Amino acid sequence: MKELLIDLDISAKTALYEQIYEYIREEIMGGRLSKGERLPSARLLAENLQVSRSTADAAYAQLVSEGYLMAKRGSGYYVCDISSLYDFTINRFDSNNTGAYIREKQADSPKAGNRNQYNGEHAGTQECMYSFLPGQIDEACFPYNAWRKSAKEALADLETGHRLLQAGDPKGEYPLRRAIASYLHHARGVRCSPHQLIIGAGNEYLLQILGQVLGAPLKAAMENPTYLQAYHTFCNIGCEVQAVPMDEDGIRTEEIPGWNFNKQQTEKQPADAQSSLDTETKKDGLFLVYVMPSHQFPLGAVMPLKRRLELLAWAGACEGRYIIEDDHDSEFRYKGRPIPSLQGMDREGKVIYLGTFSNSIMPSIRISYMVLPMELLAAYEKKCGFYTSTVSKIQQMTVCRFIEDGCFERHLNKMRGIYKAKHDCLLQLLKKKKWVRRIYGDRAGLHMAVELNCSLTEEEITERAASCGLLVQGMSGCYLAGGKKPEAGPVLLLGFGNLTKSQICAAAAILDQCMEHEK
Amino acid sequence: MKELLIDLDISAKTALYEQIYEYIREEIMGGRLSKGERLPSARLLAENLQVSRSTADAAYAQLVSEGYLMAKRGSGYYVCDISSLYDFTINRFDSNNTGAYIREKQADSPKAGNRNQYNGEHAGTQECMYSFLPGQIDEACFPYNAWRKSAKEALADLETGHRLLQAGDPKGEYPLRRAIASYLHHARGVRCSPHQLIIGAGNEYLLQILGQVLGAPLKAAMENPTYLQAYHTFCNIGCEVQAVPMDEDGIRTEEIPGWNFNKQQTEKQPADAQSSLDTETKKDGLFLVYVMPSHQFPLGAVMPLKRRLELLAWAGACEGRYIIEDDHDSEFRYKGRPIPSLQGMDREGKVIYLGTFSNSIMPSIRISYMVLPMELLAAYEKKCGFYTSTVSKIQQMTVCRFIEDGCFERHLNKMRGIYKAKHDCLLQLLKKKKWVRRIYGDRAGLHMAVELNCSLTEEEITERAASCGLLVQGMSGCYLAGGKKPEAGPVLLLGFGNLTKSQICAAAAILDQCMEHEK
Repeated sequence: MKELLIDLDISAKTALYEQIYEYIREEIMGGRLSKGERLPSARLLAENLQVSRSTADAAYAQLVSEGYLMAKRGSGYYVCDISSLYDFTINRFDSNNTGAYIREKQADSPKAGNRNQYNGEHAGTQECMYSFLPGQIDEACFPYNAWRKSAKEALADLETGHRLLQAGDPKGEYPLRRAIASYLHHARGVRCSPHQLIIGAGNEYLLQILGQVLGAPLKAAMENPTYLQAYHTFCNIGCEVQAVPMDEDGIRTEEIPGWNFNKQQTEKQPADAQSSLDTETKKDGLFLVYVMPSHQFPLGAVMPLKRRLELLAWAGACEGRYIIEDDHDSEFRYKGRPIPSLQGMDREGKVIYLGTFSNSIMPSIRISYMVLPMELLAAYEKKCGFYTSTVSKIQQMTVCRFIEDGCFERHLNKMRGIYKAKHDCLLQLLKKKKWVRRIYGDRAGLHMAVELNCSLTEEEITERAASCGLLVQGMSGCYLAGGKKPEAGPVLLLGFGNLTKSQICAAAAILDQCMEHEK
Repeated sequence: MKELLIDLDISAKTALYEQIYEYIREEIMGGRLSKGERLPSARLLAENLQVSRSTADAAYAQLVSEGYLMAKRGSGYYVCDISSLYDFTINRFDSNNTGAYIREKQADSPKAGNRNQYNGEHAGTQECMYSFLPGQIDEACFPYNAWRKSAKEALADLETGHRLLQAGDPKGEYPLRRAIASYLHHARGVRCSPHQLIIGAGNEYLLQILGQVLGAPLKAAMENPTYLQAYHTFCNIGCEVQAVPMDEDGIRTEEIPGWNFNKQQTEKQPADAQSSLDTETKKDGLFLVYVMPSHQFPLGAVMPLKRRLELLAWAGACEGRYIIEDDHDSEFRYKGRPIPSLQGMDREGKVIYLGTFSNSIMPSIRISYMVLPMELLAAYEKKCGFYTSTVSKIQQMTVCRFIEDGCFERHLNKMRGIYKAKHDCLLQLLKKKKWVRRIYGDRAGLHMAVELNCSLTEEEITERAASCGLLVQGMSGCYLAGGKKPEAGPVLLLGFGNLTKSQICAAAAILDQCMEHEK
């Protein structure tokens, strides 16, 4: 068993558990702790380092959840096989002003359903008392005053010099891009300069633009189940989509087309080499993998490190492969540290990062952002640089003010506490229910997926619930056409963002009622 | 010569010249005045109807500009050949709540350049004193107070019941669609219900969506020169574009592919008939014609009635043909009545109408709208109904308030006067210049196209001007790749929207300087 000599700095801003986490992580990544090696128990580590047991536990838990360590019951913690699939020394596209991969204690949020659902023009929901639909945010706690102030100041700023009226920057206002880049850097470990950021009116719009940047023919592999809005967008732009099954760690990488490259030969083939993959890529156009590694929708899986590295290796193995990291869900996380982005690990310019303010501010604001690798940025400028920005300048500068004045961070911190309380309340309730077989994605976000232990179909349950005044959505609508659905029982997506604790209890009681009289 | 028995209503809200215009128009459309028939002179008409001579002149001028009458110098006014190309009795898709084709005294506006240009992140324009670039609106006269009030009220409205935070209607907020439909109906003669309106973040976005609705393969014919943003968008979505030459009336209809159908056989072929056109359409997918009939960009041509009817007949001649009417330019018109939209004449659901608030409110607002024929609306719902709106709810409701409170109309009326004064000032100046060969598009919009009488190239002139502190753009950048450029001399696009009269004089003087020393 390796002894860990960690030089903790008690006066540092970084929490002790984070310092331990960081140290062990670096040891593993640097190869100084190798596959299968056993680490001291949490009790022993705490003793050695003179920290509390809970601090040691937290550090280990985070390392386990990110896939660096494996916990064997009764036996302790072991270093995982992260193999040498991915070479961290390559750093082709690192731009000067992004700096190192810094992590700070920040946050993560989720989206849900068709992740943010519209209730219809003359919504038939008036009769419904409660909604478990995913993608609803807490409406009572929005900082209206701060928002109004930001909006007012942004308008006043823009009136000066009549900048309000002039056409905006095609990629989005520079100050907002700068603010987002800085936020992503600190909160998500994303490495980018503001120049790599494109601001657009929603993720679907940005995916359409991306399709134009990449050009036809285009293929994409998606997790199944997944976020169907993205799937339909791919279909609409003529992209051929392949469903890839999931397990509890996320997308099953070995089922991604082109996965069968020899793991011993992971060094990149020279561009002119006639490897079968290269030929395939040239003939078939580009290949994308669309994933949500921080918190998969709808299942909530967090992709462990090993699989992340596998994905990056797959993308790096030949030209024409890219990963879309949809980080829709990264602000509200209730257990452990935020999971850093895949983009931050990428050294070969293979990850396209997508984020949104739909959950962190409001669904109706329609501001998303995309971070392009440098190579694709050039293609963007050439093919899509002529497009006018799709977001109004006033809205952009309002959000910019909101972030720069610290309102955004305060709002996120407040909401994380509020959502955690709702989350804990629902989780405790569900754990007592006989009709709950399994709960997925219960560490983050604004919804959980609940596999049921009952003989009713999803449709029967949602109908029964609606007739009792509860809107609820099944997971079957999240599967890709043609993709395999598992044999498991019905699964409900329970969004709790806009319910109070007592509403959560009442809504859960309605579900009790629905399950009571089975067929 | 036909005597005109017009029953004028002096107490009516409608101006006398409009009543005369309306009467004669109806007589022509109803076939009671036929091709070649000579009308009384303006003097005689004025006498007969007991109106002023200028009233009779105004009515005739409008009828001439819309292509109902032809003026022969020294001989009088004759009814044009509007043939029976297009059957006005078909009214398949008229919806109940749009009512009749009502026209009221309203307005038209233009766009320019890449119609609304962004000056760059670190714009090199600081050194330039003046900008003749098209697409600039008057920044000094914007009703900041009214706008601020609308924004504040919209926010307050939305806070009630937390509607601000809920995801919006995918097609755009209903109250805004209702307000736009009503505006379009009264100001532009557009017949549509709010349900046919899709609000989106800019014309280019809406064209991309339209491409998805129509599906591949897609072909489009465009006027040449044209609005290149639309051309590039078509190219990006895989639409094959054909350049069609223009004359002073706009697109030369006889050069549109598929034009060579027998004019005697204009009755629609039954869907199953094996006409060569039908076969062609099925094999080749859909065919679009993209036009700007109210005020063509960049040349400013107003498409006369005959050509409008020809276009509608072309579209109606077989399945799979649609016309995109980009009415970007319909708010500011300085001579005669506004030219009603092509969409308002369409009875077969062949016209897709596009409009924008970029010129009428501000370029940075990013709100455009598209009116779909009922047939395409169904396809939209099916293929694109899942897309979340691309415009933020706050912005939509701010514009809605701005329109409903009458601020929009007041703003347009005020700006029309302001722009007309600038327009007249520039026109007077240009008419005196030796280097001006011809002026195009001088009745509307925020720019003119000026053909030069000089041996310099466009590039030389724009470079000389820039070195003297004046930004100016040539028209050669508006031609489609592969389309023929005419042999004419260099043409400049002179946008005057954001220049004061004295700035217009100073800028024109710089042009004098540039032309002074020819090669």
